[in-house]
Parts: sequence; C-alpha cells; structure tokens
Amino acid sequence: MGLLIKGGRIITSTDDERADIYCAGEQITRIEAGIDQSSLPPDTEVVDATGKIVFPGFIDPHVHVHLPFMGSNAIDDWTTVSQAALAGGTTTLIEMICPGPKDEPRAAFEEWLGHAKGKAACDFTFHMSAVRFDALAQSQLRDIAIDCGIPSFKVFLAYKGALDLPDEHLFGLLTMAKKLGVIVTAHCENAELIDAMQKRLIAEGKTGPEWHEPSRPTAVEAEGVHHLATFAEMTGAHIYTVHTSCFQAVEAALHARARGVNIWIEAVAPHLVLDKTYAEKPNFEGAKYVMSPPLRKKWHKKYLWNWLRGREISTIGTDHAPFNFGDQKIMGKDAFTKIPNGIPSVSERVDLIHTFGVCAGKIDLHTMVDACSTQAARIFGLYPRKGTIRVGADADLVVYDPDHKRKLTVKDSLSAVDYNAYEGWEVTGRSEVVTVRGKVQARNGKFVGAQPHGQLLKREPTHF
Amino acid sequence: MGLLIKGGRIITSTDDERADIYCAGEQITRIEAGIDQSSLPPDTEVVDATGKIVFPGFIDPHVHVHLPFMGSNAIDDWTTVSQAALAGGTTTLIEMICPGPKDEPRAAFEEWLGHAKGKAACDFTFHMSAVRFDALAQSQLRDIAIDCGIPSFKVFLAYKGALDLPDEHLFGLLTMAKKLGVIVTAHCENAELIDAMQKRLIAEGKTGPEWHEPSRPTAVEAEGVHHLATFAEMTGAHIYTVHTSCFQAVEAALHARARGVNIWIEAVAPHLVLDKTYAEKPNFEGAKYVMSPPLRKKWHKKYLWNWLRGREISTIGTDHAPFNFGDQKIMGKDAFTKIPNGIPSVSERVDLIHTFGVCAGKIDLHTMVDACSTQAARIFGLYPRKGTIRVGADADLVVYDPDHKRKLTVKDSLSAVDYNAYEGWEVTGRSEVVTVRGKVQARNGKFVGAQPHGQLLKREPTHF
Amino acid sequence: MGLLIKGGRIITSTDDERADIYCAGEQITRIEAGIDQSSLPPDTEVVDATGKIVFPGFIDPHVHVHLPFMGSNAIDDWTTVSQAALAGGTTTLIEMICPGPKDEPRAAFEEWLGHAKGKAACDFTFHMSAVRFDALAQSQLRDIAIDCGIPSFKVFLAYKGALDLPDEHLFGLLTMAKKLGVIVTAHCENAELIDAMQKRLIAEGKTGPEWHEPSRPTAVEAEGVHHLATFAEMTGAHIYTVHTSCFQAVEAALHARARGVNIWIEAVAPHLVLDKTYAEKPNFEGAKYVMSPPLRKKWHKKYLWNWLRGREISTIGTDHAPFNFGDQKIMGKDAFTKIPNGIPSVSERVDLIHTFGVCAGKIDLHTMVDACSTQAARIFGLYPRKGTIRVGADADLVVYDPDHKRKLTVKDSLSAVDYNAYEGWEVTGRSEVVTVRGKVQARNGKFVGAQPHGQLLKREPTHF
Amino acid sequence: MGLLIKGGRIITSTDDERADIYCAGEQITRIEAGIDQSSLPPDTEVVDATGKIVFPGFIDPHVHVHLPFMGSNAIDDWTTVSQAALAGGTTTLIEMICPGPKDEPRAAFEEWLGHAKGKAACDFTFHMSAVRFDALAQSQLRDIAIDCGIPSFKVFLAYKGALDLPDEHLFGLLTMAKKLGVIVTAHCENAELIDAMQKRLIAEGKTGPEWHEPSRPTAVEAEGVHHLATFAEMTGAHIYTVHTSCFQAVEAALHARARGVNIWIEAVAPHLVLDKTYAEKPNFEGAKYVMSPPLRKKWHKKYLWNWLRGREISTIGTDHAPFNFGDQKIMGKDAFTKIPNGIPSVSERVDLIHTFGVCAGKIDLHTMVDACSTQAARIFGLYPRKGTIRVGADADLVVYDPDHKRKLTVKDSLSAVDYNAYEGWEVTGRSEVVTVRGKVQARNGKFVGAQPHGQLLKREPTHF
Repeated sequence: MGLLIKGGRIITSTDDERADIYCAGEQITRIEAGIDQSSLPPDTEVVDATGKIVFPGFIDPHVHVHLPFMGSNAIDDWTTVSQAALAGGTTTLIEMICPGPKDEPRAAFEEWLGHAKGKAACDFTFHMSAVRFDALAQSQLRDIAIDCGIPSFKVFLAYKGALDLPDEHLFGLLTMAKKLGVIVTAHCENAELIDAMQKRLIAEGKTGPEWHEPSRPTAVEAEGVHHLATFAEMTGAHIYTVHTSCFQAVEAALHARARGVNIWIEAVAPHLVLDKTYAEKPNFEGAKYVMSPPLRKKWHKKYLWNWLRGREISTIGTDHAPFNFGDQKIMGKDAFTKIPNGIPSVSERVDLIHTFGVCAGKIDLHTMVDACSTQAARIFGLYPRKGTIRVGADADLVVYDPDHKRKLTVKDSLSAVDYNAYEGWEVTGRSEVVTVRGKVQARNGKFVGAQPHGQLLKREPTHF
Repeated sequence: MGLLIKGGRIITSTDDERADIYCAGEQITRIEAGIDQSSLPPDTEVVDATGKIVFPGFIDPHVHVHLPFMGSNAIDDWTTVSQAALAGGTTTLIEMICPGPKDEPRAAFEEWLGHAKGKAACDFTFHMSAVRFDALAQSQLRDIAIDCGIPSFKVFLAYKGALDLPDEHLFGLLTMAKKLGVIVTAHCENAELIDAMQKRLIAEGKTGPEWHEPSRPTAVEAEGVHHLATFAEMTGAHIYTVHTSCFQAVEAALHARARGVNIWIEAVAPHLVLDKTYAEKPNFEGAKYVMSPPLRKKWHKKYLWNWLRGREISTIGTDHAPFNFGDQKIMGKDAFTKIPNGIPSVSERVDLIHTFGVCAGKIDLHTMVDACSTQAARIFGLYPRKGTIRVGADADLVVYDPDHKRKLTVKDSLSAVDYNAYEGWEVTGRSEVVTVRGKVQARNGKFVGAQPHGQLLKREPTHF
Repeated sequence: MGLLIKGGRIITSTDDERADIYCAGEQITRIEAGIDQSSLPPDTEVVDATGKIVFPGFIDPHVHVHLPFMGSNAIDDWTTVSQAALAGGTTTLIEMICPGPKDEPRAAFEEWLGHAKGKAACDFTFHMSAVRFDALAQSQLRDIAIDCGIPSFKVFLAYKGALDLPDEHLFGLLTMAKKLGVIVTAHCENAELIDAMQKRLIAEGKTGPEWHEPSRPTAVEAEGVHHLATFAEMTGAHIYTVHTSCFQAVEAALHARARGVNIWIEAVAPHLVLDKTYAEKPNFEGAKYVMSPPLRKKWHKKYLWNWLRGREISTIGTDHAPFNFGDQKIMGKDAFTKIPNGIPSVSERVDLIHTFGVCAGKIDLHTMVDACSTQAARIFGLYPRKGTIRVGADADLVVYDPDHKRKLTVKDSLSAVDYNAYEGWEVTGRSEVVTVRGKVQARNGKFVGAQPHGQLLKREPTHF
Repeated sequence: MGLLIKGGRIITSTDDERADIYCAGEQITRIEAGIDQSSLPPDTEVVDATGKIVFPGFIDPHVHVHLPFMGSNAIDDWTTVSQAALAGGTTTLIEMICPGPKDEPRAAFEEWLGHAKGKAACDFTFHMSAVRFDALAQSQLRDIAIDCGIPSFKVFLAYKGALDLPDEHLFGLLTMAKKLGVIVTAHCENAELIDAMQKRLIAEGKTGPEWHEPSRPTAVEAEGVHHLATFAEMTGAHIYTVHTSCFQAVEAALHARARGVNIWIEAVAPHLVLDKTYAEKPNFEGAKYVMSPPLRKKWHKKYLWNWLRGREISTIGTDHAPFNFGDQKIMGKDAFTKIPNGIPSVSERVDLIHTFGVCAGKIDLHTMVDACSTQAARIFGLYPRKGTIRVGADADLVVYDPDHKRKLTVKDSLSAVDYNAYEGWEVTGRSEVVTVRGKVQARNGKFVGAQPHGQLLKREPTHF
C-alpha cells in the first residue's frame, strides 16, 4: 500500500516547493508537482496537504527514556515516549545510554536497546555514555561504536563521582574517538564546582529549587565548554556540546571553532522558551523546571535565537527527562540537589519552536527544519536517510498546519509524566499527519499507528 | 537537443549522490541513477562523468568588468571575462555597477547592462552601487532594485571623496533597503583613515606597493565593519561585507550577528591563498598583488578557513578586477596610491579553493559548493534556479576532475589581463565540462560555446 | 597664618598613614607623626582630624558651568558651582569650554575664563573643545594648549551639525594633538545614528524622557569609542573617553588599549549609581535623569565598578550640567530631544562614591582617591601639585568623616539648580573641612571661605 | 653610621623628584632637596647620585633557589642568588617553597628557610606551595600563612602526578585562602594535556627542546587560567597568575577581572624579551631557553608590553631557576621532558626591562618601578616597608645609571649557573649602588656587602 501526500508546501532545511510526494513502500519514491493519482496503485492512502506544510520528520537528538536517577527511574517507557514524540511531529529519537560507573558498556547497550526494542513506535538510535575508560570499557566502547552502529559517545564533565571522567580518561576517549571517526557529545559543567556550591548552599539552608541555578551558574558551564574544547583542540576530536544554555558557554564554543576546533552546539527547547523565574515558582512548583544546565536569566534567550538564526548553533533538542512532580520531583523537597532533573518537552518541542521561533520572527521555517531535524541527521550520520525530503529518503513526513492554535495541557499529552511544563501556553501550529517510513503513526496529536514499528538506526562513523 | 551527464558523483552544498542528470532544455529535468539512454531523444548529447564530480555551476558574487579606475578601465570585457569564468567552472557572475558620484544610477545601470548584453557567455546580474543618495538617486535606485530586478545595493565606506557615502546617506540607504527587502553589500574600510595614511606614507617617501597594506591596516577594516554593522543594527537592514580580509573584521561581523544584526560575510580567493609578502615582491612586481582590502599577514588565513568550515563566512568570491601589469599597474610606479586595484582570479577561484581548501583538508566538498555557489544564490535571490542541482533548476553544471594536476599560467588564461597572480602554482582539479542552461560552454579550460548565450538574471527582493 | 591638621588618617591613592599635616602657606610643608604645636607660629589654625580621614582635595575632571543649550544656559555660575563643589570635597574643577561651530576658539577661551575668574572659590582649569578645525582654529587651539596652559582638547563625535567634527578634521586634530603632547578627551556617540533615531522616535510619537536612551543605545556609544580608538591607533594620539557608560563602550576601549592605543577611560557618578529606570519615572520626572550617554540598564554598573576596582577605568567625574527642572528641563515636555542634558552631581559625587563604592565593598579608599582625584591630576598635568598629599603639593585637603550619615536634599545644596537627582538618598560620609591652598573654604557642607580664591591652573603638555 | 644619597632623581611608581635621601639606620629618615651635610653625623657615608636615578630596591616576586628537579637541584644557593640579585638591583626575593606531594608543609617551610637563613645577602620571603591538602596539610598551611608570616600560597595546575592539586582540593584551598586573607599564586597550565602531549611527541620521536612549546601551547595555558579564575569566581579567593606568557592567557584573566574576579597578573622577563625561536637553537642550545610556560611566538610580546603599560599586568618577575647547561640541562638530551626548566634572569631583569621596555618606549620609568617593585610589595603585603621611597620605609635603594652600556655575559654574573641566556646582548642602564636597609651591598655589578645581611620578611594577610 502506497502513500500519497498531495498539494503541500514542502519545506526542507534549504528548499521550499509545492509538490506531491509519493511513497511506494518505506521510502519516498516520487516528488513531483501534480502526481496523477490514476498512475498509483488503487489502495494508495491519500493525505490532502493543501494549505499545509510538509516537513521532514523531526529528530530529537537528546532524550532520556530509561533513565535511572537516585534509585528512581524516568517515568516514560518507549511506548509512551515514542507516542508522545510522534504526536508532536518527531519521528526519530536519539536516547542516551546512561550506565553507572561500574557497569560494563556492552551490557548497558544491550539493556537500553532491550527497553526500546519491541516498544518504540518511532525510529531510534543512541549516544553511548563513556563513564569509565579502563581497558575493558575501551574495547567495548569501540565495539558499540563500530560493530553496533552507535558512533557517538557522550561524556560528562558534570556529576562528580558518578558520571564525570577524569582528565586523563577524557583525553584518552577523545583520542580514541578521533581515530574511530566518532563524535563526542558532552555535558559541559564543572563537576567539582557544582558539588562544592551545592554543599555550601545546602549548608546555608538554601534548599529550594530556586537555588539550583546559583549552584551551577553560567561560569561553571563556560568552564566546562572551555575545558572540553581545549582537549578537543589537542586531540583533534569532533565534539558536540549538548543543552548549551547561556551566552558565555556558546561564546566559548565559538571562540574554539574560530581556532579550528570541530565543535557543534546544541540548544534545547526549554532554554529557548523558559527562563530562571520558572524555577523560582513558589510552593515547590519550581521543581518542575529543574534541569541541568539550569534555566538562565531571560537575556540569554536573545543570543541563543540569534545564533540559531546565524546557524552557529546547529541543533535544537529537548533533553526530555520525564519525572513526575507528584512522586518523583518531590524527593527533592528538602534539598534541590535531590530533585530529579528534567523538563519533559519531547512532544512540545516542534510547536514551541514554531510558535516562539518562526511565528515570532526569530528564525525562518528552513532554520527550524535545519535545527530540529536536518543537522541532527547530518551530525549523527543519519543523513540523507533522515533529515530531509528527497527521493530515496525514509518516508518520515510531517504534514503541519501552521495556523492551528491550541493550548498545551498535560491532559492531551501522551507522555506518562504527570505535568506539562508549558501548561496553558497557547501555541500556533500542529502536526496533523506524521509518518514513519511510509506509515501514518500519528494524527492531530493522537497516536494512530502500530506500536513496535520503530527500528534501531545503525550508523557509520563520519567524524575523522 | 538534450544533454545527459552520466555516471558522475553529484555534490551539492548538502548532498552527495551518484546519479545521472538529464536536461531536456535549459533546465534539469531528471536526476536518477542509471537513466536509460534509449528513453532519451536520439540527438541527446552525452557527457561521461564517470570518476568525476558534478557540481552546480559556480557563482562569483563579486566581479568587476567594466571598471573605470583613474581614467583607465579594467582590461576584460564581457567576452573575455565570461569565457575566463566558464573555463574555470563559474557560470554566473555578479558584477558591480560602479558609477561616479555625479552619474545618475539609472544611466549607469543601462551602461553596465549594455556592456554585458550581447557579449556575456555566462549568466549575469549586478549589484547596484549607491554613491549618491539625493532624491533622484533614491528614486532610481528603487526602480533598479524593484523594476529592473537588481535587489542588491553596494555601498562604499572607503574611497574618500569618490565613492564613500556620508553617514546620513548611509542611514537613509539602509532604511530604504530594509523597506524594499534589498540587501546592502559593503566595502568596509574607513575612507578618511586611508586617505590620511596614504598622504602620510607618500610624504615620507614610502611609495612602493609594499606600503599599500600599511596604508589600510586591519584596524581600518574592522572600523568599517563595526560602523556599518551598527548602522544595520539601528535600521534592521540586511548587510553583506564583501572581501572581508582579516580576523578583526570578521570578528566584528560575528559579534554583530550575535547581537542580532543580519549580516553575511564574503571572503575572496586572494585573501585565502595569498598574503602580504606577495605585495612586497621586488621590482614593482608587488603591484600585481595590490587590492583593497590588502593582502594580510599569513595568520589571518587560518581563521578565514576555519570560519568557512564553520560556515560563519558564507561566500567566496574573487573581486576580479583585471588591470594589466605592463601598462596599467605601472601607473602607480611612483605612488602605490595610483596602482589600479585588483588581483584577477575569476578563472582560478574554483581550482584554488579545491586545491588549498578541499585537498588541504580545510573544508569539505560541500562547503566548497556552499561558499562558491549555493550561498551566493541564496543570499542574492537566485536560488533554487541557480546554486544547486535539482529538477527544475537551470542546467548550469560543472563536470569536475578532482585529480587533474596542472600549473596555472597566464598563457592558458582566457582573461585579457597580461599576468597571472598565481603563475606557476600547481593546482589539483579542473572543470572538464561546463554548461550554462543546458549548453556546453567550456571544456578543459577552453571556451567551446556560443558567445552571447548569457542572460540577465532578474531577481526578487528577499531581505525584509 | 599656618594650618595644622592633627591626628588624621591620611589616605592617598597609594598610601595609608597616620600623621599630622602642616601647611605654612599655600603648600604642604610638613607631614609628620605628632608635630609639636609649640614649634608652629602661634596663629596656626588647628583642625582636629582625630578619627577622621584626610584625603587630597578631590578633582572633578568633567563639569559644565557656563553651558549654552538651545538658547538657555546651565543654571550654575562659578560662584554657586565652586561652592557646591567645595561643600562636597572637590577642590579643583575642569570645565569644558564649549563654543559653537562658528565661534573662534580664542574668544571662547577668554569668555569661559572670564566667567570663572573673580568668582571661582576653588581652583580650575579647562578642556578646550575643538568644534571647528580650519586654519584659524588650528592656530588658536595650539595657542590655547601651549601658551594658555590648556593642553587638553575635547572632541564630539555626537551632536550632529552642532558640535561633531568630520572625520578629516578628527584625524587632523589627533595628529596635531600628538605632536603637541595634548590629550584629546572625547564624547563618543555616533552623531548620525542619534539624529536619525531621534527623528524616527519622535515621528512615532515616542516623545517622553523614557525614549532618550533608546535613541542612543549602547551600540551607538560603542561605535563612537571604536571609531575614535581606530583614529588614535593611526595617529598615535592619546585619548580619553568621557562619561563612558556601558559594558560595550568600555570593552571597545580596553581592546584598543591591548592593541597599543593610549586610551584612558572616565566614568561619571550618575552611571555608577543610577540606571535607566530613573529616566522612566512618570509625570516627566524622568527628565531630571536625562543626560548623554544616557543612564543604562542596571547590569552595566557591575562592570563599571569591577573595572574601577581593577583600575582599567581611570577616573570618576560628574558631567555636572545643572538645568532647572521647573523652567529648563520642561522645554523638552513635548520632545525628549529638547530636554537640556545633565544630572547635577558636583556636590554629591564624593559621598556617593564613598557610600556605594567604598562602604558597599566595591572599591577601597585608595581606589576612590585614585579615581576621584589622583588620576585626573596625573592625566591632565596637575600632578603632583594636585591629586596627592605630599610636601610641596598644594594644601588642598579634605578632612572626611567616614561614618557621618545624612540624607541628600536639594535644600542643603549650594548648587543653583532646583532639584537633587538623589533627593532623599542616605549617604555615609561627609567632608567636614575642605581647604584650597591652605585656606579652609568649606565646613560640614557649608561654604565658609573667600569667594574669589580660585586660580586658573596652567598646565604643561605631557602626552607625547 | 648614616647614609646620604645626594643629588639623584628619585623615581617611584608615582613620583619623580630631585632630592637627597638620608638614612640614619635601616630606614629612610629624611627626603629633602639639598640636605645640609653638616647637619649629619661625620661618619655618614655619602653616595653621589648626580645624573643618576634613585629607584626603590627592586623586588623579584618569583624566584627559585633551593629547587629540586628530577633528582638534581637548581645550582644557585642563597649566597650566589642573593649576590646576583643585588648586583642587578634587586633587594628582595620571594622564593617558592616547593615540597613534594608527600612532604609536610611545615617541614618544607623550615627546610627552605634554613637554606636562606645565614646566607641571604638581601631580604626575602616565600610563597608556600600547596601540593597536598589533607587535614594535616591544611592545618600546617594555615600556621605557615598566619603564624610564620607567609600569607601567599602557590598552587600548580600543571605537573601531573607531582604537584597538581585535584579540583576538590583546589576549591578547598581557595576557600581557606579567602577566609584567611591569603592570596593564591598559581601556575596555570593544564597538567593532563601537557602529560598527554609530551607522551605523544616523544613517541613520535620529537625529542628536542624545540618540541617543548608544542607540548604546552597557548590553549593549554589559557585553559589553566580560565579554570582557576572560575574557581576563584565561586570562592571569592584572590588569585595571582605567575609567569603569564601569552595573549590568550592574559585575555582570560582580564575577562575574569571584568566579571569581578580578584585576579593579578605576573609577567616574567624571559617572556618579555625572548621568544620561541631561542628554544629552537640548534645543537641542543635551545635547552637553555626551556621554561614553563614556554617562550612563545614573537607577537605575544607586543600585547604583554601593552598590558604592562596599561597596568593590566601588575608585576614583572623572573621565575629564576638556574640549571647548568653543561651537566643539568643535558639530562634532557634525549627527551625535552627531562630538561630542567628555567631561564636564569634574576640579575639581568632590571636592565633588560630598562633597555627593552623604557628605552624602547614601551613603558615609562614609573611603570618599570611599579611592575618590578611596588606592585609586588603591595600585592604581597610588603608595602610600604618595601616597594617605594618614603620616610619610614626600609632604605632599600638603587642608584641607577640610565646611560651605562655594557654587554651581558656569564663571566660577569654572580649566579652560579654556567651560561647566560642573554650572552652578548647590549643593555642600557646599570645599578651603580644598591643598598639593603641602609647598607651598601653592591656596586657596579659587584657584591661589596655583608653576606648574611638578609632578613626574613614576615607579612600580614591582606586579601580578604
């Protein structure tokens, strides 16, 4: 059974044209103005996209699903997260595999893969965290990158004693990554400073969520970026700073790029539309807005948007990490350091960026596609299978109504989490029809597809 | 008669695929792997691109042809310049219309157009210089931009008393440009400082070409960029700094972009591969290397290439301005201020960038296409007609042999100028077949096409 | 009759010691611990400074007295301004001579001198504005600098058509200044941008004082500094940016200094303690807070104080320019562009800096003395006659009670102006006894001295 | 017996006056023009300083004497180093106490003190290295700082596994230092990067001294400064970056200062007058020029001098660390990593700065005094006892002939080291008479004094 998307305005990261799209199977097979329907098989499913935009399926390069946090676990599983993603126009998720410092990488990979397989309704791949770097870990990381098709590592400069790598191992990892052509994504905040600041603030009785940001101010993040970039400068490794939140951190990255460092910058939706005052909401409600790096002062947003417009910032992810407010965030009632980190946004990202980016005149539609889809595909070796609309690409398509208005609410959300950080916000734009490899998986915010339709995307290393 | 390009590796700014290209008339009509030749008209011309790259025709966004300079004229006409361009893979030229401060814009436009029409072997359009801004000029500039399809202005901060606009008119021009959606390209060097420094150096007996750079050091260019960018910040106009030559100037532009200024940056080939020491060659030979902004110290090149790789710099042009060494450059024998400015590079650009950019590992093929073709098309309203390879686009194609080695020499050059700034340099890569709207115009560095094949490209304003 | 200051803690820009100071005539003649009073003439006036600080007399390097503004005149004359200055601990004023663009410099100098002579109760000198630069002006400016002992020029990049110098003259002035060893002080805001922004805002009906800042935002000031600094870089002239108000402008100055430009930076009291919200006060009260460059957003203050602490910013002046609220500021009721500019602070400066700088822990006492006295003396050729406490220096001394608290109010002010910008503010610290060349001129905020005691301070050029 | 210095031109960091100086004992007791000799004791020693400059004794804030290095020891002892210092006009040395990571701080202090006591011919104090930070070390460091009068710590970010402190201890040390009012001096280079780069270069057979710089490029030093400054920002500690060698490192420090970090910057003589090409001298002679941070490319010097002129850089030390070329540097014949680090300059510093700074027009005499004496005294709690010329200060004086010319040579050197890094360089200026607390210790480059005249200078903490 084929799929025909008729009459839409196709927007990619570079192009804007009116044409019909036909997908014979899982791939796009024809893109032409006015495809004659009579030339198609009679059982072709037809989607009328008149007056609508057709986007390539969006990719979220930074989500957490099976995420342990202080004995608890993020509340989404792959069933809910993939349905939520699809409802919001996202057709590919890249999840971070996040073992503990004593776990074997290979076992962790299998564990994470096991959670996704047979559940994911959208396509998926992983970033492999390197939280240990002994000989065994090195060997397994290499296997995972090359043999298992996961050529992107994740490294933490933050989370002292839990996830952070010592400098010696950081150098080793980057050296190995360079040799393998693997990109290293990184959480850049100085672990020691955060640990010390947390202890100091808690000791001073500053325990509420509003103290989360002061425990890891912009200087701490800039230090992380500067540190990592210098290591990349010495090793030649290609790096990618995840959830870069503030002027100072991006500036450090751009200075490094001018010096010749191969560095890509990711922003995430919460830092683009929220700010520090949300984490200061009374009655512990601020806990809903605790993530790391934290929400910053408002003025940072202007620079993040400007750098997106100039494409200095490459991608927009979410760092989706869903913890219930009622029974999980509450664990940090007496100490902000114990609040599980995360602002769930996997379903809302596309509409938020459309509303506050495109409609607000900060970026155009092409840049939205570039940041929310194409660049993630290019950087992480999924392009041109994913990230664009062309013959031969996977038929991951979003028919988007750019004029639809609605209010975001937890009630409509397919994520399992019990709150919506954007509750009551009016957004403009909605994914009407969302397909994954030719199959309609979501319509108008509802999941309408087959559950275990998602595939693991094996990738090749490209960062030599 | 159709044209089939078979078996090539198609490289665009974003994509890399093996496919055949068929052009039924002036446009590309099919792009498919293994086009069945028997399905094509029998008189189809077939180009075998096996083992070759197929690029979109290159665009040079910054050339001078009919260029008056102190009573003399640049030595190329549109016959020679367009043949030289085509021989080097460039299929579209954007020439600057450069009237004197008393000339009427409209008359200048007609004059420049007259020189190109009936001669150009490649397609062309113009940037319209605004060197006066009285009511008449305003009205005519508007007409040229909108009615004549030339929606890009050029403004000079340099050339005191000749071309420079006073600040009041600069503000007015930018305000008008913003309203019309016209981009303002700009030569950013402070006119007054150059004038004063020239007088001082000449008075001190420093008359040789090696004093050209000290008469307009990097600070003078950075001042120009900073000045223009501030005016753009206040007016909202979109700006484009031509031939940006040094670290300091690009840095000023990038800071402005972070603040929200819509600014694009052009580098030119000479600044990427030559340096200040060339202008210091003895026996007045340095005069061959006099252009403005001048060639800089070597270390600047590293940053220009890094910023190209990161795509912070958008385009690579040439500022082709051909003056004979024998009878024109020599006018400045007694004073570098009288040396006609220009380093002819219109034919050499593509191979220089391939050799010293791609083969040297500084940028990849996609970035080469982006900077030498696609971005010029996008910024100046030619996209997607020009600047990429897709069905519906003009069949401007370059079949490129990436392995061919030869030495550059004036003897092989189709430009009328009597020297080659890169004489004896070995380059890797050559445009084997070059087509303009489906017609083969050049082969292996020779012009083989029809002379008045070039068309004026009318454009729409896009910079609102 | 001699003067003995007993038992104080002497604080200079570098030193901190307890000693008595004896002044036999106009100069300090002895500084010793425990001067034996019996060794002094019987009619020696004794000031008990026990528990007090003794500062060198403060210098305000930036005041306006006889200031024409749109047909009106600043409201202080030298009687009131010098008494107000003395009451606040300031013993030397440097006034700007401010002729119109058609006035002869020499005549202006005589006019301004005439207003001060015979009235000034404190010592004084001038900066000579260069608002024209024809041959006559050049000759007279030279005479004023060298023969009349006024080796500091003032130049305006702002005030289009009234005071701003064209670039050619700016270059000429700086070249001449360098040759003469004269420093060029400068008001750095781009004249054209302000003019255009003012017209635009007024046309949009944005006429209130709150629109003054948006008519000349930080980018406009940074442009001015960058422009001037580049001209200084080319000419070698020594420059001094007056009333530098914002992060961006100081940053531009410091970058220039790193490149080798001889640049000094002045902050003024209003920018250090007030902010933009004051100019937004309702009922036109914001007009009291209109000056140029305008009051900025709060965050700029943090940087200004940090740079004072690091001594990157050299001086703190006031830009005292007293216009009555009742009958002068009101002229701008219908258009902020007509509000006379100025926030009178000549009397309040020292206590404001003591309160919000020293007591607030932002700078120490030495830096306060350095910025409010010593550096002005050093930069403008008054040192060591003024600006410090040492044998042989003029006996300009301030016995200061660092613990005294009072509220500032227009009722106590000796300035003629009808409002106090700091009305009701509590300050810590007061000048108890203020002497000029050995004579007590003020006590506890009251003028107790002789009126025409002030002298013109002739200076030598030092900026070669 | 008193000492009279007659007829000199006294230059301090701030002042310039002609006067005689009389020292009754160890302190300066009178500074007056034309002291009547008949009023002095008959046995007064008279030094005729006519035509000479009188400087305050110079202070070198960064020397190594008793320095273990890979089983060897620096070749000077306190006899030779103090005589060499005095011969060159330096009257106070601050030596770094440099224990191994297992040594007890207290024992190290006693050991270092023991080496100096009874030998030093000039005054001295220490910086106490913190290379461990367990409870015992914390307690002893506190005692050394407070009870023993050594309130300046030294911390290493470099020297992996030997001297570098882990981040946790760095935070602890800075927190303790802030509380105690102790300043933390720091060697800022990233230990891990150097270690890794060394291993890589050696493995590649790059073993000569010319590879020392590439093993620790500017990015590695900038990383160190950025890292330390961020820790200081979080703790409030006052920091001082020793031997800051390059544009990038100083820039990082100045950015931190603008943000509010209390940071002082030290340059050392070798980085101001030498450059990377010296370490590239053939036949292993480059080893004479191996120090850390290494000598840099020439262009850095311009910025260091500019920042000295602007007083952004506070001090000039030497990092004197004397290892013989013949039998010590040679230990690194097969691997640059084993070359003992150091470019002996304790005797040459003052004349080098006078020649290449003052005579070359880069800084004036006051800035020379400020950087080579006064600031070290102020920052390290020796002021006003040391660092200036005033009544009550120690009579540490240098009668300096600013016109004397000679060639530097190891033959004239009083240091024990077997080479002179500046062999054959012509310098202008010589210390003719050098006194320590009233006693003439050196004349015309010869030691003429008493050997164990030097005292330990106990200091108070001032960095709260």
